[in-house]
This record gives sequence, C-alpha cells and structure tokens, in this order.
Amino acid sequence: MGSSNTVRKLQVVSPVPADIDVANSVQPLHISEIAQELNLSPNHYDLYGKYKAKVLLSVLDEVKGGGDGYYVVVGGITPTPLGEGKSTTTVGLCQALGAFLDKKVVTCLRQPSQGPTFGIKGGAAGGGYSQPAAIDTRVFHESTQSDKALLNRLCPPNKEGKRSFNDIMFRRLKKLGISKTKPEDLTPQEVKKFARLDIDSDSITWRRVMDVNDRFLRKITIGQGPEEKGMVRETGFDISVASEIMAVLALTTSLADMRERLGNMVIGNSKAGEPITADDLGVGGALTVLMKDAINPTLMQTLEGTPVLVHAGPFANIAHEAGFGADIGTEKFMNIKCRYSGLTPQCAVIVATIRALKMHGGGPEVVAGKPLDRAYLTENVALVEAGCVNLARHISNTKAYGVSVVVAINMFSTDSQAELNAVRTAAISAGAFDAVICTHHAHGGKGAVDLGIAVQKACENVSQPLKFLYPLDISIKEKIEAIATSYGASGVEYSEQAEKQIEMYSKQGFSTLPICMAKTQYSFSHIPSEKGAPSGFVLPIRDVRASIGAGFIYPLVGTMSTMPGLPTRPCFYDIDIDTTTGKVIGLS
Amino acid sequence: MGSSNTVRKLQVVSPVPADIDVANSVQPLHISEIAQELNLSPNHYDLYGKYKAKVLLSVLDEVKGGGDGYYVVVGGITPTPLGEGKSTTTVGLCQALGAFLDKKVVTCLRQPSQGPTFGIKGGAAGGGYSQPAAIDTRVFHESTQSDKALLNRLCPPNKEGKRSFNDIMFRRLKKLGISKTKPEDLTPQEVKKFARLDIDSDSITWRRVMDVNDRFLRKITIGQGPEEKGMVRETGFDISVASEIMAVLALTTSLADMRERLGNMVIGNSKAGEPITADDLGVGGALTVLMKDAINPTLMQTLEGTPVLVHAGPFANIAHEAGFGADIGTEKFMNIKCRYSGLTPQCAVIVATIRALKMHGGGPEVVAGKPLDRAYLTENVALVEAGCVNLARHISNTKAYGVSVVVAINMFSTDSQAELNAVRTAAISAGAFDAVICTHHAHGGKGAVDLGIAVQKACENVSQPLKFLYPLDISIKEKIEAIATSYGASGVEYSEQAEKQIEMYSKQGFSTLPICMAKTQYSFSHIPSEKGAPSGFVLPIRDVRASIGAGFIYPLVGTMSTMPGLPTRPCFYDIDIDTTTGKVIGLS
Repeated sequence: MGSSNTVRKLQVVSPVPADIDVANSVQPLHISEIAQELNLSPNHYDLYGKYKAKVLLSVLDEVKGGGDGYYVVVGGITPTPLGEGKSTTTVGLCQALGAFLDKKVVTCLRQPSQGPTFGIKGGAAGGGYSQPAAIDTRVFHESTQSDKALLNRLCPPNKEGKRSFNDIMFRRLKKLGISKTKPEDLTPQEVKKFARLDIDSDSITWRRVMDVNDRFLRKITIGQGPEEKGMVRETGFDISVASEIMAVLALTTSLADMRERLGNMVIGNSKAGEPITADDLGVGGALTVLMKDAINPTLMQTLEGTPVLVHAGPFANIAHEAGFGADIGTEKFMNIKCRYSGLTPQCAVIVATIRALKMHGGGPEVVAGKPLDRAYLTENVALVEAGCVNLARHISNTKAYGVSVVVAINMFSTDSQAELNAVRTAAISAGAFDAVICTHHAHGGKGAVDLGIAVQKACENVSQPLKFLYPLDISIKEKIEAIATSYGASGVEYSEQAEKQIEMYSKQGFSTLPICMAKTQYSFSHIPSEKGAPSGFVLPIRDVRASIGAGFIYPLVGTMSTMPGLPTRPCFYDIDIDTTTGKVIGLS
Repeated sequence: MGSSNTVRKLQVVSPVPADIDVANSVQPLHISEIAQELNLSPNHYDLYGKYKAKVLLSVLDEVKGGGDGYYVVVGGITPTPLGEGKSTTTVGLCQALGAFLDKKVVTCLRQPSQGPTFGIKGGAAGGGYSQPAAIDTRVFHESTQSDKALLNRLCPPNKEGKRSFNDIMFRRLKKLGISKTKPEDLTPQEVKKFARLDIDSDSITWRRVMDVNDRFLRKITIGQGPEEKGMVRETGFDISVASEIMAVLALTTSLADMRERLGNMVIGNSKAGEPITADDLGVGGALTVLMKDAINPTLMQTLEGTPVLVHAGPFANIAHEAGFGADIGTEKFMNIKCRYSGLTPQCAVIVATIRALKMHGGGPEVVAGKPLDRAYLTENVALVEAGCVNLARHISNTKAYGVSVVVAINMFSTDSQAELNAVRTAAISAGAFDAVICTHHAHGGKGAVDLGIAVQKACENVSQPLKFLYPLDISIKEKIEAIATSYGASGVEYSEQAEKQIEMYSKQGFSTLPICMAKTQYSFSHIPSEKGAPSGFVLPIRDVRASIGAGFIYPLVGTMSTMPGLPTRPCFYDIDIDTTTGKVIGLS
C-alpha cells in the first residue's frame, strides 16, 4: 500500500463532523484498485457493486508459503459504556501504516450486527423485519410514558439543548394538520395527537415475516419475557414474500415512488379508527434504505445466453402476479400491475397441457408425488375435448382485455397428435389468435420457435388499447363482483368480518384501489375440486384486507395459508456442496 | 440478441436430465457480455459476482422516448398441482425469439420464495433460519408416524421403486454404528434408531434468530395454530449474530471445515441423552450451501484508501472476538481463535482513554446519553493514576501470552499533558513495550503514525512462541478456573444447572473444547460496577452452554440478553434516502 495512486490525504476538518458526512466527503476508489494494490488479480475476487468485493478462498492456495506478515490484535482496557475507541484505533493504526509509513497492511474488522445498528447506533439494515418490532415496542413505550415524556424522547435536545422535529415527524404533523415547527409550541392536545399513536392492538394487520417454511410460527404468543411486563399478544409469522414490502417492491415505479408507498403502508388503526402508517412509526425512510438495492432488477441469462431480468417475488395468491391460471394471474397483471406501470401488453400467452385439460374433462385427481392415473398416459381425445371448456373461458376472459391470445400447448411425450389437434381446434374456435405446440422442455428455444413466430405475429396484429375489467371509481363490492362474474359466479356472499372491513376501508378513503383476489388457483370457483368451467356458484368472501402502500385491497376467498410447512423429508436432505469445487449438489 | 457471439446452441439430451445437471452442463457467459448485447454500458449496472448484475434505474432516463418493444404476458389454464409449465414456456419462448428468431428479447421472472425452495422444490436459501423449523417439524412428524412410515418418507422410492440412503443419512448411520447400505436391510431396532431422532424438547438449545432488536420475541409460545395439534412449546428468538452459525463462520478455516462444523452443531439431546446434530436433522449440507458466499471475506477500504477485510460478526459476549476489554476480548482471541487458526500475533495493542481510567480511579458513573461529569472534563492526575490499576492488569494478562504490548492512548481534546504522561509512565512500569498518544479520530492515519512506528518495532522485537492461558486437555472446570484467576477471582461458584451441564458435556466427550466466558465487559468481575482491578471475589457460573460445531463451551457469568430492544426513539427515525441522488441520509 502507500503508493500515491491509491492513498488520498484526508481533508481534516475540526471539529470532527458526523461519520456519515466524513464518509460522504470522500469519493472511494473502485475496489479493484484496492485489490490490485494487494496483488489480487481479478480471478481472485468477485465484485459486489463498485466498492465491495468478495475475496475467493482459492487465493489462499496461491499465497501458500509466501511467509506471513506481522499479526496484531487490538484490545482495550475495561471500557465505559461509551466505548474507548478500539475500532477507530484499529483503522487509524492501519491508515498510518499504509498511508504514511509505506507498509503493506490489511485491516480486519467484524461486521456490525444489523439489529442494534438499526435501533441505536445508526445504520439501517434489518428494518424489513423490524417493523413489527417497532409496532410492539411503540405500544410498550406508550403504555409506560406520559405524553410529555414521549415527546421529549422522540425529540431529544441537541448539544445546544434545542429540541426539533425531523423530516419523518413532519410527515405525521402534516397528516395531523399541525403546521407548527417546534416541539415546544405544541399544545398538550397536539402533543398527545403527535406523540401517542394509540395503536389498537386488535387492529394490527402486520405480522412478522421470515423466509422459511416454519409452520410452528403460524400462531404464537409474544411478549412473555419478564421485561415485557405481561404485554403478551397473539400473533404469527408469514413467509417473507407475503409481506406488503414485497408487493410494494413489485409494483413500484421509482425510488421516490417506493419511498412513498413504504411510508404509506398501514399497519393497523388507532383506537379512534385512524389508519397508522409506517411513517407514523418513523420507519418509512429506513425501510426505503433497506430496499434501495432490491429495486434494481437482477440481470441473469438463460442457458442459451438470452438475457433475464429477475425482480421481486410476491406471494402469489395474496399478491398480484401473472402466476397460476389466467383467472387470478393474468387478471391481476392487467388490472393491478399494468394500471400502475402504464405498460400495455399486445399479446397474452395461455399455457395448456393435455394433462390438465384431461383433468378438467373429468379425469381422476392429480396428486403431486403420486404416480399419474393411466387416463393421463394414454390417448383419450374425448376427455381432452371435454376439458377445453376451461381453456375456452380463459381465452375469452383474456381476450376481453383487448389483447390477442396465443395458446402454448406444452407437449409431453405421452400426448397423441389427435389430442393435440383437439386442443388447437378448441382454442381457435374459442377466439385464440393461434395455438401452437411447444417442446421447449425437451429442446430448449428450438422447441418454441413456432410459438415465437405466433407471438410475434399476434403482437403486430393488435391495435386497440388495453381494456380493464373494472374502473377504479366504483365501490369495493362492485369491483369484487365484476371479478367474481368473470370467474362464472352468479353472486358474492360477504362474511360479517368482510362487510366490516369493506366499510372501514371505504370510510378511510381506500375504496378507489384495485382489487387483488386471494383465491385458490385450482378452480375458477372457490372450491379446488370444481374443475372445468363452473358457473352459477356464489363466491364467499371470508375477509377483506388491504395493502395500502402497495396499492390494493385483497379479499380472502376461503382460507389462504401464508406460512407453509416442511414435509417429513425436506429436500434440504439432498443439498450439499462439493467442498473441493465449491459446486452446489443435490438440487432437483 | 441472437448474434453468434452470445448464443450457444444447447446440447439436447434425451430423456431430459435433472435441472441442476442441465444447468451445470453449460458454462454461462460473463454477465457483462449479456449486458453489452442489451446495449447496457458498465455504468448502467453493478456486478454481483460474475453471472449476476444489478441494473441501475438511471438507465431508464437514458432510454426515455426510445419507444417500447412488444410486451407479452404468459398465463395458463387452471393448473394441476404439478403445474403446466408457464415459467418453462416463458423461458423457452424467449430463447426461441432471442436465439433462433434474431429478436431482441428480455425475459422477466419473479424471484422464487426461499422457504418452499428449501422445503420442497429444491434449492437451499433460508436454511440458516430454518433449522429450528426443521427441529419442531421433525418432532411433529415423529409424533404422528410409525418408525416404518418415517423410514419410508425419509427414503422415498425412485422411479424404479428402489429406496436408498443419501450422503447425509450415511453420516447418521455411521454415527449410529450401522454399516448397512440399503433401507430394507435395517432391523426394526435399527429403523427406530435411524429414523427416530426422539428429540427431548426440553433439551433443545437452538432458538430461532432474526437480525432485529425485537424484545417481544425474547420469550414466546409457538405451535398455537390448529394444524399443529396442540404441540405448543415455549422458546424465543435471539438476534442473528448470536447464532452458532455465525460463530462457525468466524472460526472456520475452509469450506470443508465449515461443512463439518455446521454438520456437527448440536441442537439438543435425544431422550436417551445423545447429542442431536444438524446432520442428524439432514440440514448440514444445505446450511453450508447457504454460507458458501459468506465465507469469502468482503474487501473494502478506509477513507485513506487502505484495504479492509470484513468477515463475520459474532455476538460479542457469548462468542469469541477481540472486542471489549482485553479480559474477555483478547483472551478469547488468543485461546480460541488463534488456537483454531494457527496464526500467532506478535503484538497486542491495548486502547485506553483518560475518561475510562478516571472511571476506574473512582470517577462518577458514566451513562450513555447523559452529559459527562466535570471530573471527566477537567484535569485530575490523581484520578487517572488511581485508574491505571485496570490498565496494568490488562497489560500483565496480555503479556503472559508472550506478545509485546503497546498501549494506544486515544486522546480527547479535554485530556491534559500531565494526565497523558501519567498513563504513559504507568503503562511502561506495568511492562508495556511502549505507550503512545493517538489523535486518529481527529487526524486520521496521520494521528496514529507514532502508534504505527511503535507497533512495527514491537512486532520486530518478539521471538518467543504464543503461550496459551490453559491447555485443552484439562477439565472444563479447571479451564474456567484458569480464566477466572486471570480476572482476579479467588474462586468459582457453580449453579446446580451449571454442574449438570458440565457433567453432561464431559460425558458426551466435549470437555476438550476451549472456553468462551460470557461475562460483562464493564468489570474484570461479574459485577459491572466493580471498576479498577477487583480481586478476591468468587465468580458465579449461572449456566454452561456449548457451541459444539463452532468449537467452544460457554459458561454464563450472570445473565446475558441475546435479544436487544428498541428505545422509544430508534435511530431509524433519522434514516432516509435522497430519492434523487440515491444517497443514504441520517446515519449518525
């Protein structure tokens, strides 16, 4: 180190500014320059952005026998709660050795824990998870402090003894219609309104999340530690992707838009029935910091070297995404996603298999893990034709958006030509622009060339604008009913709870949001076993929830588990690593 | 796309091999080549390894008005539980368009959720967290299934109907002393031993972890959902860094070593008192896959362009790390970390401040957030001299390892020359190689040049090998007492629970592990208010735990919270992002 091309002399300022200002005052070098100074060649590390690199352990073999440098440990005397500066001394020492004494030196530090950084030290990581922590802790602190004490803790005095609001507090003040700018100017009434969120614990809709199949966390009791003074509460965990934060990530259009959506997420109500948001909790900005890299889509590639963008991963049934059948997939894509993105598709592909069509025609139940019934392995044109009613309804529903529909028949080796022809005929007569047989699973892109040509033609063929299934300015119930009708339902039945929620969301001014139905993907109806194209049924709405930040209301049609479980033999049994090559093995 | 320099024609094999084999059969292109084909210049994206890149949103401004391409959505008919191939069709279609029809095409996919991937689909992420899920679910499944049913589910038949053990199962068979290689050859007794872990729920030492300050998770009751059939259990969450997985990461020496340590982690006992490991649960390999990138240290830089390696972040008091006072920091570094790494330091720096020395000399209590007492802001040489007994003991304890000790006096603006001289004199007479005043906080590396020179000299000065404080082959109690003596204790007092645990770990054959004391950092003793250099006290051991995989026994001296809480005003209130520049603001 120490050669002039990397070392920068610090512009020393007195008094020492805040760490973040010092950090921002320096333009860091591209990390590859730092690596080069350490004689690391590009194959010794992987870049993670411009200023971080992961050093590969393979470098150890190459430096073997090179002889070790000096090794120094930095400890301290028994510290005060303020810390005596071990880390700063470590870094300062290394800067002296490297930048002033022309020694080759490497500082080794531990990673900070994210939780405390987020809570006390500064920094932001961990917040995606920590919002429920923020909710329960806020309720806890409000239960033990006076309005004035809360205000004083929320607005601590600076060195000159002055108290002030920060940006996120001004968001809440604005929401409360308080235009004052100094804490000391608030009336006792305003102090109470500002400092006391007065969250109604029963109204909290936010659950903690983990990206794990952990069924034992579906329903838990928290706060049983003695320090929590009996503030126990029943709640549960969802799988991370079911978090509204994921839905926000998937629907947002820019960093600024994401900041607003995250801040607007509603976590529950005050006892007075007012919606309490992430910004009321003071966490909206920190959440945005956590998600700032996630918003950038990840570029990857297919086996044939074509580009792939991977972005977000919303929880299917309760989020909007094109997954599953077109009834809940394409519908949400059109009415929620396209509405927010402003992008309009020209063509919709509908994937069908002989197997699924036979099931819809009356074939025996298909169960994952169990061998398929003969009916699915031998030719049965009649069964296929009977099942095409399901395909036909998806086609007409999708065509209603004003896009051309191409049916992709995902061919299996057991499919017969007669069966395939039957599907093609049914698709065309149902209004499909084309229906094409694909063998991409066996042949890669070559097996989907006909589909590619058909989709290209279909896109060129479209002129009309996108037609949504429903406008936003009708009532929540009218929107739900418009979607239910597209399922083939003759009516909708609301539970007492659903009625209550619809009334509340309407009163709170959220009735103009689009609707995201949480319904089984296995039937147009709410009953998974109802195959084909059922009609005349009454769709039951068990409950209605809302993702205000993401921007949709989601009615629950039947029960949806948001926390999967693990089987007796999870596939982690097969997953391991070849410790010599570093290659992952055992992925199915 | 589609130009020959990126497109690779797939070698198509029939029947279609497993996804992982197909994936491994192709050498992916460096992602920068893919980006180039999309006309993305390097400033449009950040590399994340060789095969992934994050596309920066700034690219949107540059392509504005460029005109949109065609936009296609892929849906499906109502699916069977097996899925009809929407994702494969999407990818196949894009490969056809890009690689065969010479169109520019970008596939857009959602990220898979990690939980299910880990549980059912294949894939591995989520496992760090999911081990407790694996424990509870295993107990659950064992409670509802016969030995034979468990065996059959653990070893499902392949296409030919043959059942077999996989690698991780052979680890358990070996541990059980069963040399048979076919499930059908096991005797009923062996089936029970192999398939039934028979975990004693009361003995489970593993808690779930999240990297959040979430005090309400310190003590919780899980399994209250109806599907869990009343299998409720009291447990709690620790902050992630307190997980043994973090300790393993910090102490491991290679990928192969990490695989063994993770597999050897003990999560509790069987009802017969046998230790149950991560490999018994079948999760050791998958955990290693999750940690394979974390093991590579992250290269960063100081403000002055010197290199920094950041790796792991163990939970201070219950893990080994050089943090805190030399009594628990340097001691663990020497006796645990250096023992495993084989690396030996030549010099130990001990950081001291006038502030802390005054506290040890009898100054008033120092409380974070409260203004400092005058005693700390005005000259008081006598107080400093009195406090040097603390520094002196740290120096002699550290010198005992055979390294030379340099004291770094981290100078504050309120320190007087007389006070600084007093420390220097005390340090030298206590046996320090040198004692140097540092002003790095104010002046960066320049302020630590004298320290750098002293440390360099100290390293050159050392010849003797490292001397550990205790050998590994003495009893657990003898090791604990050796460390307690170095604290100044006259003896050690074990709780009944501690006695029980020590006996158990000794019986299980873990008594040769080094010791990692979980003690307050605020005093040599177990009482934080005992400043200076207390002696003659009896050190109470409340409990004794073990991180078998990481490789140490950790006695709990008093209570240690492994899940911090949030204050009334967490600093996330200040954290936000400048949505125009993307810069983080509000970090202190």
